[in-house]
Amino acid sequence: MKILAIDSSGQVASAALTQDNQLLGEISINHKINHSVTLLPMLSELVRMTELDLSSIDGIAVAAGPGSFTGLRIGAAMAKGLGFALQKPLLPISTLEGLAYNLYGAKDLICPLMDARRNQVYTGVYEFVPKANSENEKDSVPSAEMILREDLQNKNEREASLLSYYALQPHVAPCALGIADITDKLNAIGRRVLFLGDGANVFADYLKEHCKISFGFAPAHLNRQRAGALAALGMEYLVAGKSVPASEFVPEYLRLSQAERERLEKEQVYT
Amino acid sequence: MKILAIDSSGQVASAALTQDNQLLGEISINHKINHSVTLLPMLSELVRMTELDLSSIDGIAVAAGPGSFTGLRIGAAMAKGLGFALQKPLLPISTLEGLAYNLYGAKDLICPLMDARRNQVYTGVYEFVPKANSENEKDSVPSAEMILREDLQNKNEREASLLSYYALQPHVAPCALGIADITDKLNAIGRRVLFLGDGANVFADYLKEHCKISFGFAPAHLNRQRAGALAALGMEYLVAGKSVPASEFVPEYLRLSQAERERLEKEQVYT
Repeated sequence: MKILAIDSSGQVASAALTQDNQLLGEISINHKINHSVTLLPMLSELVRMTELDLSSIDGIAVAAGPGSFTGLRIGAAMAKGLGFALQKPLLPISTLEGLAYNLYGAKDLICPLMDARRNQVYTGVYEFVPKANSENEKDSVPSAEMILREDLQNKNEREASLLSYYALQPHVAPCALGIADITDKLNAIGRRVLFLGDGANVFADYLKEHCKISFGFAPAHLNRQRAGALAALGMEYLVAGKSVPASEFVPEYLRLSQAERERLEKEQVYT
Repeated sequence: MKILAIDSSGQVASAALTQDNQLLGEISINHKINHSVTLLPMLSELVRMTELDLSSIDGIAVAAGPGSFTGLRIGAAMAKGLGFALQKPLLPISTLEGLAYNLYGAKDLICPLMDARRNQVYTGVYEFVPKANSENEKDSVPSAEMILREDLQNKNEREASLLSYYALQPHVAPCALGIADITDKLNAIGRRVLFLGDGANVFADYLKEHCKISFGFAPAHLNRQRAGALAALGMEYLVAGKSVPASEFVPEYLRLSQAERERLEKEQVYT
């Protein structure tokens, strides 16, 4: 099963290709935000270097938001164009879930922080927990679902055996919050946290001052958006039937854009 | 602090650039093993896309082995050439430690398995444990080392604040073992394990049959060599003074090459 993935939701532009549980290629650049210029050549380079026949892919994973409005629209437009042209389904994945998936199997809670300006962050709180019916789990008791699976054809069994043991469980669902609010929530939960995302840099001093819990920051290779993480999650989404036709995909912004907000404010003044 | 990193120890060719705790760019390709042809153009593309002035880097992280003999020599030769030309130190990092660092902060033990042919694997067993004097740890008591650090100049303090909270602690040091031997060791330790590396694919059926412990496999975006992980570790190595001049670096093969083994066998026959 081949998954192509793109992420342009933040400062990083990233493209990746996976086949089953192998990353065949990935290019990520975090330098100047001109994704409209860089993302397609990057994808083209990935296709060239992996000698990919685009018609052989099974789905297109894309960062579904939150994130930069322009960045999300560039990624969405490209994913929709590819999906429409190739007649392949889209696999929209929350940018926050994709970020958290970088820290697969972490013992701590995971809190992605994406700088949303105006002292806000796009954020959530996640934990890796064993899936109820993981097939890699030696100690697990065969459930009704697993027995059912035995009746399926080989292809589906093989796919199931590729799925991951841990799933991301949200403690706080994706939202736009003030940095003080998410800090309060984490202090209330009271467990050790790993922060990642560009907001972790922006608000590092605030966190050091106001976190009453123990916390740390993810290292350089794991603390920003990666299309590879979207592709890995994309395979799980595709097997679970969580795909959408290219024509139906819309990014999830979580907040009004500046233009929309200002129009609303004007309208309220005049009415 | 800028670290350039390359890894050609296995089937993946990978190049990455980090600045402090940010990944500025990374290219990884796992498609046909012709690293002597692909690695330098890949590095050149990374330099172009990040507009890197090569003279601005502080060190060159390189997969120090174990791995493919030819692959390691290509990586070593390139790293030594770069280091010599740019007069920058090399940061040799165990390929197994680099692999394990993909799973930063994992709750399970980590067992990288690199297929070494002849039913053997290059392997080790690691665990992420909090560093004794982590500066990100709210609850930690200032130690002598931390008090000493306060006297250092700003630059050093800033560097220290970028270092990670967790360190990799080896339970089994890097070695070449039969797959049965490492499975026995893991069964004896008796804790849940996450496998990764190309050997995890090759020996998946063996592990499913013979592991008495609970185990899982790392997902696609985290289960192979990444230069990004080497760069992140490279920064820690540089701060800790674990660098070597380009002229002194030699890869760690952990085993004799086929040619050396066969010569030894012949010599033993004739003596």
